[in-house]
Amino acid sequence: MKTDQHVFLFEEGSANMKEILGGKGANLAEMTRIGLPVPPGFTISTAACMDYYASGQQISSRLKEEVLRALKKIEVKTKKKFGDPSEPLLVSVRSGAVVSMPGMMDTILNLGLNDQTAEGLAKATNNRRFALDCYRRFIQMFADVVLKIDHYNFEEILEKVKEQKGVREDIELDEEALEQVIAAFKNLVAKKAGSPFPQDPEKQLIMAIQSVFDSWNNQRAVVYRKIHKIPDNLGTAVNIQAMVFGNWGEDSGTGVAFTRNPSTGEPVLYGEFLRNAQGEDVVAGIRTPQPIESLKEAFPEVDKQFKKICNLLEGHYRDMQDVEFTIERGRLFILQTRAGKRTAAAAIRIAVDLVKEGVINEEEALLRIKPEQIDQLLHKQIDPSCQLDVIAVGLSASPGAASGEVCFDADLAEKKAKQGKKVILVRPETTPDDIHGIVAAEGLLTSRGGMTSHAAVVARGMGKPCVCGCESLRIDLKAGEFVLENGDKVTEGEVISIDGGTGRVFRGSAPLIAPQLSEEFKTFLSWADKVRRLKVLTNADTPEDARRAREFGAEGIGLCRTEHMFMAQDRLPVVQEMILAGSPSERNQALAKLLPMQYEDFYAILKEMQGLPVTIRLLDPPLHEFLPHLEDLTVEVALLKERGEDPHVISEKEKLLQKVRSLSETNPMLGHRGCRLGLVYPEIYRMQARGIFLAAADLIKEGIEPLVEIMVPLVGHVNELSPLRRVIEEVAAEVSEEKNCKFSYRIGTMIELPRACVTADQIAVDADFFSFGTNDLTQTTFGFSRDDAEGKFLPFYLQQKILTANPFVVLDQEGVGSLIRQAVELGRGRKGSLKVGICGEHGGEASSIAFSNAIGLDYVRCSPFRVPAARLAAAQAAVNNKDQSK
Amino acid sequence: MKTDQHVFLFEEGSANMKEILGGKGANLAEMTRIGLPVPPGFTISTAACMDYYASGQQISSRLKEEVLRALKKIEVKTKKKFGDPSEPLLVSVRSGAVVSMPGMMDTILNLGLNDQTAEGLAKATNNRRFALDCYRRFIQMFADVVLKIDHYNFEEILEKVKEQKGVREDIELDEEALEQVIAAFKNLVAKKAGSPFPQDPEKQLIMAIQSVFDSWNNQRAVVYRKIHKIPDNLGTAVNIQAMVFGNWGEDSGTGVAFTRNPSTGEPVLYGEFLRNAQGEDVVAGIRTPQPIESLKEAFPEVDKQFKKICNLLEGHYRDMQDVEFTIERGRLFILQTRAGKRTAAAAIRIAVDLVKEGVINEEEALLRIKPEQIDQLLHKQIDPSCQLDVIAVGLSASPGAASGEVCFDADLAEKKAKQGKKVILVRPETTPDDIHGIVAAEGLLTSRGGMTSHAAVVARGMGKPCVCGCESLRIDLKAGEFVLENGDKVTEGEVISIDGGTGRVFRGSAPLIAPQLSEEFKTFLSWADKVRRLKVLTNADTPEDARRAREFGAEGIGLCRTEHMFMAQDRLPVVQEMILAGSPSERNQALAKLLPMQYEDFYAILKEMQGLPVTIRLLDPPLHEFLPHLEDLTVEVALLKERGEDPHVISEKEKLLQKVRSLSETNPMLGHRGCRLGLVYPEIYRMQARGIFLAAADLIKEGIEPLVEIMVPLVGHVNELSPLRRVIEEVAAEVSEEKNCKFSYRIGTMIELPRACVTADQIAVDADFFSFGTNDLTQTTFGFSRDDAEGKFLPFYLQQKILTANPFVVLDQEGVGSLIRQAVELGRGRKGSLKVGICGEHGGEASSIAFSNAIGLDYVRCSPFRVPAARLAAAQAAVNNKDQSK
Repeated sequence: MKTDQHVFLFEEGSANMKEILGGKGANLAEMTRIGLPVPPGFTISTAACMDYYASGQQISSRLKEEVLRALKKIEVKTKKKFGDPSEPLLVSVRSGAVVSMPGMMDTILNLGLNDQTAEGLAKATNNRRFALDCYRRFIQMFADVVLKIDHYNFEEILEKVKEQKGVREDIELDEEALEQVIAAFKNLVAKKAGSPFPQDPEKQLIMAIQSVFDSWNNQRAVVYRKIHKIPDNLGTAVNIQAMVFGNWGEDSGTGVAFTRNPSTGEPVLYGEFLRNAQGEDVVAGIRTPQPIESLKEAFPEVDKQFKKICNLLEGHYRDMQDVEFTIERGRLFILQTRAGKRTAAAAIRIAVDLVKEGVINEEEALLRIKPEQIDQLLHKQIDPSCQLDVIAVGLSASPGAASGEVCFDADLAEKKAKQGKKVILVRPETTPDDIHGIVAAEGLLTSRGGMTSHAAVVARGMGKPCVCGCESLRIDLKAGEFVLENGDKVTEGEVISIDGGTGRVFRGSAPLIAPQLSEEFKTFLSWADKVRRLKVLTNADTPEDARRAREFGAEGIGLCRTEHMFMAQDRLPVVQEMILAGSPSERNQALAKLLPMQYEDFYAILKEMQGLPVTIRLLDPPLHEFLPHLEDLTVEVALLKERGEDPHVISEKEKLLQKVRSLSETNPMLGHRGCRLGLVYPEIYRMQARGIFLAAADLIKEGIEPLVEIMVPLVGHVNELSPLRRVIEEVAAEVSEEKNCKFSYRIGTMIELPRACVTADQIAVDADFFSFGTNDLTQTTFGFSRDDAEGKFLPFYLQQKILTANPFVVLDQEGVGSLIRQAVELGRGRKGSLKVGICGEHGGEASSIAFSNAIGLDYVRCSPFRVPAARLAAAQAAVNNKDQSK
Repeated sequence: MKTDQHVFLFEEGSANMKEILGGKGANLAEMTRIGLPVPPGFTISTAACMDYYASGQQISSRLKEEVLRALKKIEVKTKKKFGDPSEPLLVSVRSGAVVSMPGMMDTILNLGLNDQTAEGLAKATNNRRFALDCYRRFIQMFADVVLKIDHYNFEEILEKVKEQKGVREDIELDEEALEQVIAAFKNLVAKKAGSPFPQDPEKQLIMAIQSVFDSWNNQRAVVYRKIHKIPDNLGTAVNIQAMVFGNWGEDSGTGVAFTRNPSTGEPVLYGEFLRNAQGEDVVAGIRTPQPIESLKEAFPEVDKQFKKICNLLEGHYRDMQDVEFTIERGRLFILQTRAGKRTAAAAIRIAVDLVKEGVINEEEALLRIKPEQIDQLLHKQIDPSCQLDVIAVGLSASPGAASGEVCFDADLAEKKAKQGKKVILVRPETTPDDIHGIVAAEGLLTSRGGMTSHAAVVARGMGKPCVCGCESLRIDLKAGEFVLENGDKVTEGEVISIDGGTGRVFRGSAPLIAPQLSEEFKTFLSWADKVRRLKVLTNADTPEDARRAREFGAEGIGLCRTEHMFMAQDRLPVVQEMILAGSPSERNQALAKLLPMQYEDFYAILKEMQGLPVTIRLLDPPLHEFLPHLEDLTVEVALLKERGEDPHVISEKEKLLQKVRSLSETNPMLGHRGCRLGLVYPEIYRMQARGIFLAAADLIKEGIEPLVEIMVPLVGHVNELSPLRRVIEEVAAEVSEEKNCKFSYRIGTMIELPRACVTADQIAVDADFFSFGTNDLTQTTFGFSRDDAEGKFLPFYLQQKILTANPFVVLDQEGVGSLIRQAVELGRGRKGSLKVGICGEHGGEASSIAFSNAIGLDYVRCSPFRVPAARLAAAQAAVNNKDQSK
């Protein structure tokens, strides 16, 4: 639209004129257009700005005329006159580019004040102190923005006067002091600018407009545009709006209101107002505001109008609004409206209500909630109003919050828990030996280890809060205390609180807020389930986990880790026996003891999940994880020798040490684990497969439908998968014959190595499904050991913006994602029926779920507590994808 | 060619009739065709075999007629008659498929013998024992192959007779005993087969032919064809050839000769012969053969003919031949000819001579030598004839051989070396503290650690022999001995020998063969240089390495590792000071001490390599590699405490322990190393860059041309490279200004992470070159820690054929290669001028070099000693590529 018009009254514009009016101008126009009582004003177009530059930075006389003509209309509307000494019209002047450039350009308030109009304002508002304060602020702002006089000079004057008067705060300055300040300011301006402070309001206005135009090309703005790739030829608009004052007298006031309760979502007005006051007064907290309900009594007409406006706003913006208003001499003005911030619970209630009210549809409602907000609803949280001191911060390893007595020992933790006490288990790091203590504890705190440490993994699996790798703590187990960075100590039995969602540790018992699962929540998620294409599976290693996951809406178990079953206290000795076996027959004896235990595990889980698929991953971690630590054992042996203990005892320990050493690895993450174990010790996988199939057969006989999927971990070459597939098929055939029972099952593999991705076509031949292990795939693709990276260089990388997000939390779509894409294309190219999904922790993260949806995966897998959030994220991905493909 | 003819005399065929005659038949025909005196014979075609199957496994009367007609012609040629009781024609019957199926099908010798012809043979050869032995062997072979009587039955009879006669060896059986054996054999056949042993030679022949046809479909053959994807409908040919006997009398004999000396390549006949003997006699070693030179005296005519034939053979097969011959009653027969095995030195001499003689061209000569053979020529080797016992086998970590006194301590090793003694340093593993001992030692032997262990890397860098990870050794440093698997001990000071090329360890001093670098060798490599396209660079960390590499023909240094410079004994304390620095200023002090040292390093190397590029990799390994081992230190602290030592000493040690612990990593390979160090501690890279540029500036002033390339390691994201590029450029500008000297340089990166490969287009923006670090890329792509894999599951993988080759030795083209391809395409797509090469250990391996050539890399990098082999491999790749693209 090419037009000669360069100045647009608010009522002449609308939301879709952003290119001409800039973002702010278009918004003001839109509010005016829909009939809100916005303080009147006008916008100088971006085209005028570009004309200004084209004509050598000159405000044309034509533009000046247009501005003054528009100003006249404002005068009519406000019934005030610009420069009127008795009741002056004052205006604000603000920049407003097409693309928002926050903080890059300038604002001037109260323009139009001079020695005379200031006195007029004083009289009109019956508040001379206020008028003088406005005036001195205006001088300072104008001098800074327009005359480029460093505001430091003004601060200096202000400080000096305050010192003279013996006061500390600006607000304490009386009228006389302010007069003194204004005089000094004007002197300063005259000296620095070489001419007196302009008293002519029209001159002030033109200078301000020119200054806003100039700010388009100030250094900050140019750099900002370069970084954000914003074209230089857009120009900025200038918004000129009448000032209104809520402190004009007792018939005036100001307030803020939400159109619904932002805490609960209840559809009632929520807010507060203050009579004869400005917005600043509300913020400063000098006077206590009244609840919005009392507006009805104070200003019955305004109240009616305001309620109508709130309805109008919700209808127009189709969301709960946060509205700022001012009443000037009985007249209501809306200063700003925007979508209101709200709690997760309120967000859901509002979205569901808006759908019921016919304001938005279900898909829109789904897009209104961030999946992370859902998380908030499922875990206990520390009351945000809590005033406890944070004494340390570690890694946020498992969400939720907990309080309890500090306990350094798993046995003691168990004992105390039995006595009904709440405990937080605090350890340098945890091992399988600590499992009973972890079960007993409310939460875990460790000083070592990262997001995949034993403590973190076990805690997430159990849904317990955990803060890991809190390296600033020095734990002294002998003394029964831990020392903080500042030297303070926390001793055994003291109460601490941890927030696994933020990694914070508090001294004392923090008030916890319970999770809220409303009817609206269920309704909302049912809408999500209607539109999403991705299935949402979960991980579960126990029947309890499985039950909870079903409750949260999981459509199956995408990852059932068998190693945690091995770590149970009663099993670990048998597992160690199996590992330390001197001969195959000894190993088989130990495996024979493990078989009934594994059978029980699988029987219970498959029963719990009947009718839904259960993907069981065969043993994955290196065997040394089940043995004592090398370092501890080395010290033990050295000490036994030093003390001259029984040679037989020493020799036994040395034998164990030798075995542990022979199994220990330089880089265990890249060592003898996963299918590499299954290939070298097929008897282990054979035993596991046997346990699974025996359980399946028995369930079928009971009339229950087990959907078994067996997953072989860490395959990088099809030749690793093929022989293991044959082993599993053999066991299935054996069990089927023994039990005289037919069952179906699937065999698939984790794709968690780059080599598996680029040779996925070959691997697909022997796989019924691919499950992307994005944790390990991220580690190998980046060459990052998560445990090491998160404790060492990753925080630095994020701080320096070398990486924009932690790739272990947000899937790296460029790198890791590229490999996943290749694998999906190669795999499906070879076998169209291949089932493909993500089973790393990314399966619970929204942007990663969107990516999974976009590249056509069948499912995502996440921890039980993340299932609802993942259902929502999957729904959002489906809606957004549909929109894109329109 | 469809023909009715099913039987072809040797003289009717040729080498290109393989499909009809099978491989062996075509060869026999070819030898006959070029005029060699091959014992006459004929071949039954593969078509006849398929006809046999088509007609329900019946030998047609037509085929029988054709065979007998051909047999008549053989009788004429040999002047013997099939079944003649006085001087019988005997034949061999052998299968011969189109595609060689070694050992899959059967052979029958001496067919035509029966009770009468055996006596005839006895008279004719004047050796009744020989004739009877032939007969009993024939019965056994025929019964086994044709009649399917288990040969175990025959062995039993033989054993019984030997027992009766009181002898141990077959050869000790006299005529009477053999008669007894033959009678028993015939009885057995009659009993088992249900009919007597066939006495009619024609019947024998037809049965044998049928049996060869049948063997095409025996189980072994069917499985073999399935595995090797050989079609089932090819059929096998049958070769029937007259037997000749070198033991017919004093006018007969047998021998073997090479047409050139297989040890030196000298162009003279080389071999031996035995009068009145069969080939078996030569092999059995009962009589000592005469040198081939004496053939002239014994059989002047035959000698002339044989020499002519040797010339003919070399001309025809265009290579040195290994010829088997027999003289029967003054008549020369050639039984077999094939390319002769030869030493590496001989191979080169022969190839160069053949080019000079005009037999082959240079490119053919290049293809005749395996690059591995070149390796043999450059390292000392253990004399292959050496009879020492192998006492252990470890990893072949660094090629070459050495002998010396066992020494368990670096200081002692240095001391002994100064005394002029040769030592082998034996350690569980080596650390930077051992460097002076490694320098002093002839070779290294460790019981722990893999191909990338400190010992292995340092040894390869120095070109010293090294056997690593020899886990069967138990080293007892205190006792000053190591214990072998069998319990034997080797004590300090005893002499052992190691072969780093095979990983073998010997007791005693092994005789070593010095490397041989002949004129022919230089000529040969100059031909390689003419045709290859790939440049061959090397790694060198010292001026000495650099000089040697130039001598071997390296065209630059593709990898100059700076960490080894840090490990030198005089620098390590300063490096530790830098690492342990409590503040940036302390760190800078330590770096200031390192700067002049680094300057010297770079000055000397750049000077040595003037005019050739030197790629310097900035510091790569994690800092804890320069500190004491965590495990050792933990034990030390525990013991100090146990002993109640001075608390101050304990506290200092504990501080060090804490630092070492805080730097220690779960997976150091994936930890805080490479550019991650450079980003967190830019002052380290800044110091290194400064050292490099100062050296470059000084050299330019001396009129020497330094070609500096700086390589940033372990980049996975362009955002890691960009800031470091800026740091390096800043330092360059600073130095350029300070020194008032302009210099050019390149900045590039190692591509050694999968993420770098798939985002290579982005990384290319800030890189002048890519250097594929295929060692680490293989580790991350496979998810294999080399140190762990090679000691644990990789040997199992290779043995089970899960992998066909060790991917750390032979580049995995399917997986790792696919990522490299992507990176090259993406990188060059963004920046056409990008220089790209391989700098892992694969750069010295032939098939990996061929791959590098095929995908268009610019260079390969290998260790100095491998440069000549790599030049050859690169040349072969170029020749083969040219052939393919024809």
